[in-house]
Amino acid sequence: MEYLKDILNDLIGINKGEWLEIKSFLQHREFKAKSPIIRAGEVARHIYFIDSGILRTYHINEGKEISTYFACDQQFISTFSSFITQSPSFEYLEAIEDSSVFRISYESLNTLYKKNSKFEKIGRILAEKNYLCVLERTLSMQTKTAKEKYQDFMNTYDKKILTRVPQHMIASFLGVAPESLSRIRREMLIS
Amino acid sequence: MEYLKDILNDLIGINKGEWLEIKSFLQHREFKAKSPIIRAGEVARHIYFIDSGILRTYHINEGKEISTYFACDQQFISTFSSFITQSPSFEYLEAIEDSSVFRISYESLNTLYKKNSKFEKIGRILAEKNYLCVLERTLSMQTKTAKEKYQDFMNTYDKKILTRVPQHMIASFLGVAPESLSRIRREMLIS
Repeated sequence: MEYLKDILNDLIGINKGEWLEIKSFLQHREFKAKSPIIRAGEVARHIYFIDSGILRTYHINEGKEISTYFACDQQFISTFSSFITQSPSFEYLEAIEDSSVFRISYESLNTLYKKNSKFEKIGRILAEKNYLCVLERTLSMQTKTAKEKYQDFMNTYDKKILTRVPQHMIASFLGVAPESLSRIRREMLIS
Repeated sequence: MEYLKDILNDLIGINKGEWLEIKSFLQHREFKAKSPIIRAGEVARHIYFIDSGILRTYHINEGKEISTYFACDQQFISTFSSFITQSPSFEYLEAIEDSSVFRISYESLNTLYKKNSKFEKIGRILAEKNYLCVLERTLSMQTKTAKEKYQDFMNTYDKKILTRVPQHMIASFLGVAPESLSRIRREMLIS
């Protein structure tokens, strides 16, 4: 949990009392590999800070799972559009590996915002990060080759995600066929 | 400018002093139809609040203009990713019609954030709105028919934008050929 304290301190500068207040709202949860955390149609009630493990979001299009985001140790994740609008999620959130997380509820986060508006900055930074992430993915989908997309992915995502997330999940994230991704990876190893 | 005061008051509740502070940072600008406001490669130094007129963002892909956002009276616009990262924009911002705007600079907004963190909420709400907008567009692109996309566009965008933005700009936003959009519009008028 100390990591989260450091991240928040870097972000908004928090004193001991403020940290204790945030901490009082955090709930620890553990999820087994492949277990669902949020299902499509449910409202995302929490944002998750990953202590250890890997989580991903995905949606289902024409019967196929399309991965939309991956996060691992010391990163935040949720089905974010559902969380900020408090309306049913179109995405699923699941644990890829056994994962340990701290979660904070929508109500608790809003209580923090009301108590001290400096916490709004956390919400702003998270929203800006999510915005840049989805924008980058969209542009990449529209304008880049499969190889360029994979190179971007390697530059953006944590090594843990690159090496431990199943290839078909990464392929669906990139919008390329799993066979194409295998070929690209082989070519990159050779060249 | 009173509209902006009302919008901000609804959002974060501002007193007279706070409004005067915000107002002191606003600059009024007028742009002729078709004039560029931000060019790709430039850093977006401002966010724009539209008093009257229509603005759009677009990028160029394989020589073609792809519209990415439209805004009119009492709405905010910028090349947002460039603004929040203060790095070169991949998009253009231009006036579609003669437009009157109030702009605030990145530095001024950050001065407001530092002076009073309640202003962070404005940044959070803007970032969340931009996030939802790009996410919605991406999902729509991936999963919807041309007709569904146009129907979503009609439900989301202001009537002024629907009626006064040139059709080819809307077609590129939706990712459909201009002829397809004309056909869809004819069909919708008949049915």
